[in-house]
Amino acid sequence: MTIDWTAPTIVPRADAELAASLARRIDSLTKPLGALGRLEALMLQLGLLQGRCDPRLHHAQAVVFAADHGLARRGVSSYPSEVTAQMVENFLAGGAAISVLTRTHGLALTVVDAGVRGERTPRPGLIVRPVAQGTADALLGPAMTPDQCVQALELGREVVRGLPGNAVVLGEMGIGNTSSAALLVARLTGQPLVSCTGRGTGLDEAGLARKLAVLEQVGERHAHARAPLESLAAFGGFEIAALAGAMLQAAHERRLIVVDGFIVTAALLVAHALRPAVLEACVFAHCSDEAGHRLALRHLGAEPLLDLGMRLGEGSGAALAWPLIASAALLLEGMASFDSAGVSGST
Amino acid sequence: MTIDWTAPTIVPRADAELAASLARRIDSLTKPLGALGRLEALMLQLGLLQGRCDPRLHHAQAVVFAADHGLARRGVSSYPSEVTAQMVENFLAGGAAISVLTRTHGLALTVVDAGVRGERTPRPGLIVRPVAQGTADALLGPAMTPDQCVQALELGREVVRGLPGNAVVLGEMGIGNTSSAALLVARLTGQPLVSCTGRGTGLDEAGLARKLAVLEQVGERHAHARAPLESLAAFGGFEIAALAGAMLQAAHERRLIVVDGFIVTAALLVAHALRPAVLEACVFAHCSDEAGHRLALRHLGAEPLLDLGMRLGEGSGAALAWPLIASAALLLEGMASFDSAGVSGST
Repeated sequence: MTIDWTAPTIVPRADAELAASLARRIDSLTKPLGALGRLEALMLQLGLLQGRCDPRLHHAQAVVFAADHGLARRGVSSYPSEVTAQMVENFLAGGAAISVLTRTHGLALTVVDAGVRGERTPRPGLIVRPVAQGTADALLGPAMTPDQCVQALELGREVVRGLPGNAVVLGEMGIGNTSSAALLVARLTGQPLVSCTGRGTGLDEAGLARKLAVLEQVGERHAHARAPLESLAAFGGFEIAALAGAMLQAAHERRLIVVDGFIVTAALLVAHALRPAVLEACVFAHCSDEAGHRLALRHLGAEPLLDLGMRLGEGSGAALAWPLIASAALLLEGMASFDSAGVSGST
Repeated sequence: MTIDWTAPTIVPRADAELAASLARRIDSLTKPLGALGRLEALMLQLGLLQGRCDPRLHHAQAVVFAADHGLARRGVSSYPSEVTAQMVENFLAGGAAISVLTRTHGLALTVVDAGVRGERTPRPGLIVRPVAQGTADALLGPAMTPDQCVQALELGREVVRGLPGNAVVLGEMGIGNTSSAALLVARLTGQPLVSCTGRGTGLDEAGLARKLAVLEQVGERHAHARAPLESLAAFGGFEIAALAGAMLQAAHERRLIVVDGFIVTAALLVAHALRPAVLEACVFAHCSDEAGHRLALRHLGAEPLLDLGMRLGEGSGAALAWPLIASAALLLEGMASFDSAGVSGST
């Protein structure tokens, strides 16, 4: 199986002059040099991404891609597949963690049905574009056909193209998707599956052993799927493929991408394998408690902003980190300089 | 020198029944058990602090205590003393980091002149209650008289008493105050001064060595000041004493206290030595890059929310962490339960 898809181009922007201007601007603010720590690195990244000394964030969009997984029937999750659809309704009704966090932090929320079982009608906040009624069982064959994989990647691109603003906060929902993510992370980083496989929504010791045994079988079944898109098609899921497409499109448009936890990072590994420059647009929100996330982050050389033992998904870590990122942009915009405030410099 | 001051009482609330109710409530929310990590610990702490299953945060108040330091003349800072007054103006004009962060995150900001050199008139947002025109030079004698120390402690209490809301986000400004803080942290934790002394606003290697030499002399000068309030009076400053008083009063009233960086934590060491139960009200915002903060946090058994290499003071770390804390409260308030949302539980 080969997959014929060309990722959008991402032009790396190594602009030394702009970087120097940004550094001067940051150093002119009324604070000791470097005293805002990681927030200063965010200011610099944002300026370089937007190609300007006065970067602004506006109309930030949280997008949650949801889909079901054929592998869920193998007992790899402690929740039944129908929870995917139930949580989509919960997102829209405002009762999920991502609902609360997005309305608290001024983020628009769009949910995308990329392949959730059952029928649903488009509504404000819900895009219904299922690739299929969940992926196929990866133990029996590839989770997606090549066509489905391309369709999901393009779905992610189209969703981002249709959104306003210049920042995306990405999340996911899909019972069973820590299994797809573990398989992808293991395959794309070269780490053993056992290091990438965690308890997901809360498996006990026996459940974790069962999940790992299933994933080992799936990994062997698709031993020849080594390339990024072939691995993606082999292991799924539609939401992960859509996330990869969304990130590539966002970076192509030079939107800021806030990367959530384990599953979104697995999607980023795919995007990164196709277009390494995607990382210039990425801010890593948090280190999830799910085993394997730390490995994936290390593979990408990523330093997340938060490390709070969260492992909820939905984009909840990314939405929680949003105010930190927005703060960096607003500090750069709003702080006075030593000159303008009449504050004496260091001696 | 002995200091005659009785700290306000803080009634520890070890309510096992309430803790169990809160845990049930948290576990009923539509998320895997424990998946919100540290945010769940915050929910529990807030519920116990307020003595209710449905805690709410309202009218959160950022308060920045400012004062000058006699020791600043000894070249312990890379900025001149007049910067304290200049930054007070910058806070009020809206151009400082704390100004931007408080208006971004919906915090009211009050600046308290607890002893800044020069004259200023009370204005909206500024309380003018200087204990003196800066502390005395601690190399020559105690930074404060016993009366001044009590006056500063009481100032902190009165400021908190006069504020609405049930949460305080505490910060400070005072050129030279990492020196007072280093002396206090060393004295109250028993750690050597060299481990507690850092670059403050940005001393170079030679400056750091000079600062340490001065602090060693000050430490020896006040070798007999071992009790918390005697150490506070010996080393200063007025803003640190006011912070200690503010924290004790806030905990007495069961307000949530968001602890900023090195200097605020030094003040907390004093408060904690007087009333250990003050910790029940404290959330630790971040680990500052200033040497010694990590030691002080460890002494208190504190785990900060953020670790972003910041070392700005002003309450900037606390204000940056505020949206995380507010998020925890709003998630507990706003998330649906499995029952109410019709989401299936784990199998």
